[in-house]
Amino acid sequence: MSAAAAKPVLRVAGISGSIREASWHRGLIRAAAEICEDSIPGLRVDDLDISELPMLNTDLETDGGRGFPPAVEAFRAKVRDADCFLFASPEYNYSITGPLKNALDWASRGVNCWADKPGAIVCAGGNFGGGRSSYHLRQVGVFLDIHFINKPELFVFSFYEPDKFFDGEGNLIHAETRERLKKVLLALEAFTLRLQKKD
Amino acid sequence: MSAAAAKPVLRVAGISGSIREASWHRGLIRAAAEICEDSIPGLRVDDLDISELPMLNTDLETDGGRGFPPAVEAFRAKVRDADCFLFASPEYNYSITGPLKNALDWASRGVNCWADKPGAIVCAGGNFGGGRSSYHLRQVGVFLDIHFINKPELFVFSFYEPDKFFDGEGNLIHAETRERLKKVLLALEAFTLRLQKKD
Amino acid sequence: MSAAAAKPVLRVAGISGSIREASWHRGLIRAAAEICEDSIPGLRVDDLDISELPMLNTDLETDGGRGFPPAVEAFRAKVRDADCFLFASPEYNYSITGPLKNALDWASRGVNCWADKPGAIVCAGGNFGGGRSSYHLRQVGVFLDIHFINKPELFVFSFYEPDKFFDGEGNLIHAETRERLKKVLLALEAFTLRLQKKD
Amino acid sequence: MSAAAAKPVLRVAGISGSIREASWHRGLIRAAAEICEDSIPGLRVDDLDISELPMLNTDLETDGGRGFPPAVEAFRAKVRDADCFLFASPEYNYSITGPLKNALDWASRGVNCWADKPGAIVCAGGNFGGGRSSYHLRQVGVFLDIHFINKPELFVFSFYEPDKFFDGEGNLIHAETRERLKKVLLALEAFTLRLQKKD
Repeated sequence: MSAAAAKPVLRVAGISGSIREASWHRGLIRAAAEICEDSIPGLRVDDLDISELPMLNTDLETDGGRGFPPAVEAFRAKVRDADCFLFASPEYNYSITGPLKNALDWASRGVNCWADKPGAIVCAGGNFGGGRSSYHLRQVGVFLDIHFINKPELFVFSFYEPDKFFDGEGNLIHAETRERLKKVLLALEAFTLRLQKKD
Repeated sequence: MSAAAAKPVLRVAGISGSIREASWHRGLIRAAAEICEDSIPGLRVDDLDISELPMLNTDLETDGGRGFPPAVEAFRAKVRDADCFLFASPEYNYSITGPLKNALDWASRGVNCWADKPGAIVCAGGNFGGGRSSYHLRQVGVFLDIHFINKPELFVFSFYEPDKFFDGEGNLIHAETRERLKKVLLALEAFTLRLQKKD
Repeated sequence: MSAAAAKPVLRVAGISGSIREASWHRGLIRAAAEICEDSIPGLRVDDLDISELPMLNTDLETDGGRGFPPAVEAFRAKVRDADCFLFASPEYNYSITGPLKNALDWASRGVNCWADKPGAIVCAGGNFGGGRSSYHLRQVGVFLDIHFINKPELFVFSFYEPDKFFDGEGNLIHAETRERLKKVLLALEAFTLRLQKKD
Repeated sequence: MSAAAAKPVLRVAGISGSIREASWHRGLIRAAAEICEDSIPGLRVDDLDISELPMLNTDLETDGGRGFPPAVEAFRAKVRDADCFLFASPEYNYSITGPLKNALDWASRGVNCWADKPGAIVCAGGNFGGGRSSYHLRQVGVFLDIHFINKPELFVFSFYEPDKFFDGEGNLIHAETRERLKKVLLALEAFTLRLQKKD
């Protein structure tokens, strides 16, 4: 498959809005990484950790707003290096989580690291499958200049039947949802290539 | 003024979504406290600090979700003791800040400390005076069961002329905005009394 | 029951955002009217028809914005006479319907007829049970000064199993949903009385 | 300029959410058409009229949802023929207008005529320059599969100084705003070409 081999591998920064160990959303990012490794040769998911970021406080910035705490610098570099983004966004009280907002904001300070790149959102839990958080995240994306794919959206209605979808470590065990997650990743790949004009 | 003296003093939990020292929003909470002390005998503003809260991570909860880290317990107690809320909410990337979301979420865990109490929102900065953040906060309030006053809204359009509104320490120095802030506080007082059926 | 008899009957303006004959949302308003007649003596639902309103065009206003087309005048009078509102709001393309927005806007022109009254929202259909429309309607309510109850929310997940919830004429036939609708009405009654300080 | 001549002219469907004669938003669409004619050879704006559309009522559909009233058919054809969209969206009561929502919904019925095309939004009036309406429209666009440009956004803060921006017929007379409108159109053109992979 020389044609496929020639295609550059797109780097997806995978970001879970929940930082607890056994989070479903960390599980969704892990599942996305596995799916890409197994069956989407053009995509590679890097699992970004946002738990070590300090609370955003611009008093922590140095050098006239160009310097950041080490954990922030490291996170910003990974965002900058990505071709596109996959957010696994839980819904906490009808919006995105504090840690996720914190991460989004840190990488927007000074030179906006998110700018002009595609993104996709997947959610789980809650009576809308986590969906309310996705629309707040999309509005944030307008200012960050993230081009979110419109379709397919993936909301995992795991609130009432958690064991059907995730195991105790937060691993996605539901084959149909895995298939739907793969479709999100393929749409993200296609939209990224289309915006990069490389396909 | 025996009638006024007999009226119970309502406690307003004042919460700034920015945690930096010279924040305009911390300045708005300070101004609100001064206004109440000077000229609204029925209200007292307590300035709640959210900078010491850890990032929300339910792994930090103990006792089956009933125990919280000490800083969280202290914050929850203050929210619980308040009669109503005043949020000074900056707009970061078209939504509320990470630290504010974090604080909102911590006080909602287990027994929701915000429930069935009135709130008001004031914003500054940005091209909408910080306003986009207020509508996301209102949606969060639906689940938290906060009864936000509808009017008046206060958006301080300080982005293009910061020195007109705030000094270098974030103190509100604009008399007209102070007057508008007072009107927000009076509306919050009236709505709180109406919902408590005590006026 | 002399105490109950003494309580004034609150008039609920019931408004369906869909105008088609067999609409589920018209059915929800009819069901609400029946429930009140059967078992909530303090509430009476008036079913307001919005299908005859012209498209909002301020060129149709007369007398310096104080005169309206007859159908608009009639609708405005009914909104003004209501103590509170029940919206049955379908989700069309992730927001409220055009006819509903049109009706909301007409009754806000000049003297705002919605002002300072409580409201509740019920939705059906779509993958969120129509729910996305409710949050847009809530934001409209901020400017209209409608005090929406926060809880309970009612989203009827009828998209995948319509026959379980509604018959071919749009009548609500699902007992459990009827019970949930009753709880919405009771919460609306309680909140209205609380804001009117009459209970 | 043979290279420019060879570039296909992109058709922009221009849609004003206000249907009154002297609307600022109709004026914004006219100004966009003039700007393209004068100085953007790659774009041509067609001014779509939405005032003749009936209120959306699926009872008006025929042929199992494939047939529509003549005015609707005509509108749908124009949407289908466009390469991209320019919405001039007023803010009525913190959201989009009824007539605009109605038009959006009609062209989404059956085969969605908006799908997979870029769009841009411009707003005027209100204390946020009409801006609240744009975020509701963007959420509608997620389901309609419109790819909205993120930047630049254009909010005309004409509420307090209308005469500075528009004349009595709604014509845009403010040179700086005209320049900003041109930048929106250029960004729309660039994004459309990028998504069509033709530049």
